[in-house]
Amino acid sequence: MTTPADTAAARRGRPGYDRRQVLDVAVALFNEQGYDATSVAALAERLGLSKSALYHHFASKEQLLAIALETALSRLEAALDEALAREASAADRLEHVIRGAVAALTAELPSVTLLLRLRGNSPVEVAALERRRHFDQRVTGLVRNAQAEGRIRTDIDAGVATRLIFGMVNSVVEWYRPDGPVDPALLAEDVLAVALDGLRPRGGRA
Amino acid sequence: MTTPADTAAARRGRPGYDRRQVLDVAVALFNEQGYDATSVAALAERLGLSKSALYHHFASKEQLLAIALETALSRLEAALDEALAREASAADRLEHVIRGAVAALTAELPSVTLLLRLRGNSPVEVAALERRRHFDQRVTGLVRNAQAEGRIRTDIDAGVATRLIFGMVNSVVEWYRPDGPVDPALLAEDVLAVALDGLRPRGGRA
Repeated sequence: MTTPADTAAARRGRPGYDRRQVLDVAVALFNEQGYDATSVAALAERLGLSKSALYHHFASKEQLLAIALETALSRLEAALDEALAREASAADRLEHVIRGAVAALTAELPSVTLLLRLRGNSPVEVAALERRRHFDQRVTGLVRNAQAEGRIRTDIDAGVATRLIFGMVNSVVEWYRPDGPVDPALLAEDVLAVALDGLRPRGGRA
Repeated sequence: MTTPADTAAARRGRPGYDRRQVLDVAVALFNEQGYDATSVAALAERLGLSKSALYHHFASKEQLLAIALETALSRLEAALDEALAREASAADRLEHVIRGAVAALTAELPSVTLLLRLRGNSPVEVAALERRRHFDQRVTGLVRNAQAEGRIRTDIDAGVATRLIFGMVNSVVEWYRPDGPVDPALLAEDVLAVALDGLRPRGGRA
């Protein structure tokens, strides 16, 4: 969906590109080649723009990265905030955040992919990794509370459990394709089913 | 462990480096900066060698990559071959391959990390990704057979189940540290416990 502001931005640059489109192409190229290995010249070439036309849209390669990471992180954090705002048990909140995280990944696949592949070679990346760590710590707290409620087994460390859950959730960026056969809502249910009940039959879900 | 051949190789290069050590430093740098973004000049600088001294050890950057990927893939494939060679049910073989894959990851952490972050921008990478795909297909076959035995639930697609299991297994490269507090053998048991029984208590493991 384009807004009048986007259209004006497109008019200022070369026809056919607004800021959002330049950002999408940049994130796709970062995911393909790696952020560090992608030069502004390569990005301008992919877009068919001159470097100066590209700088008309964005101040720097790092600004493109920062905007994409903000998109990914704010979506994930919103899912967690929403879960924590619920009047519910820790176990129910945990379920809610897992569902929300899968939804965030499938809805913002390119920017979350970029986030998950960060190496931390610049201040923008270090700050994003710090926010990810904080997110993980908050989820670990939820797991710990759900253990205290007796709703999550206590023979697995809460930190390890969180990492294994997000191992499943985050793997989605490696193999989920928006045009593929897997429904994102059902995918979230499959992640929850394995995380909570495991793959061995237990007479639960038919 | 160094062999006489390694020692001879070390004598041919600068003192203090044999082929194995050059490879280890290269893989660490690839993981830090990304393979595409790492130049031979940067690698020589990290080693404190001239580029020509480095080429004394290895023909190309791609050769270093190929050797590291071979290490990772052959170890994972050996774990699968060993599991399939067992006189056992598909479910027991699956358990064996999950344990073996976690052991492979923790034992060969740097090279498996490199494998899991490949983008497929060169023939060596494309070939490695093809071997990974073949590995995944063989494991999916095991999951399907375990479903037919009634030992794995059938309401989750075998391909999705395999990807979620390996989402957990592969996440280990993101957070396991050899000098950290997590015992690799117990880690494999935690992965198995979640994959098979889930995080909800079911009166199984105490």
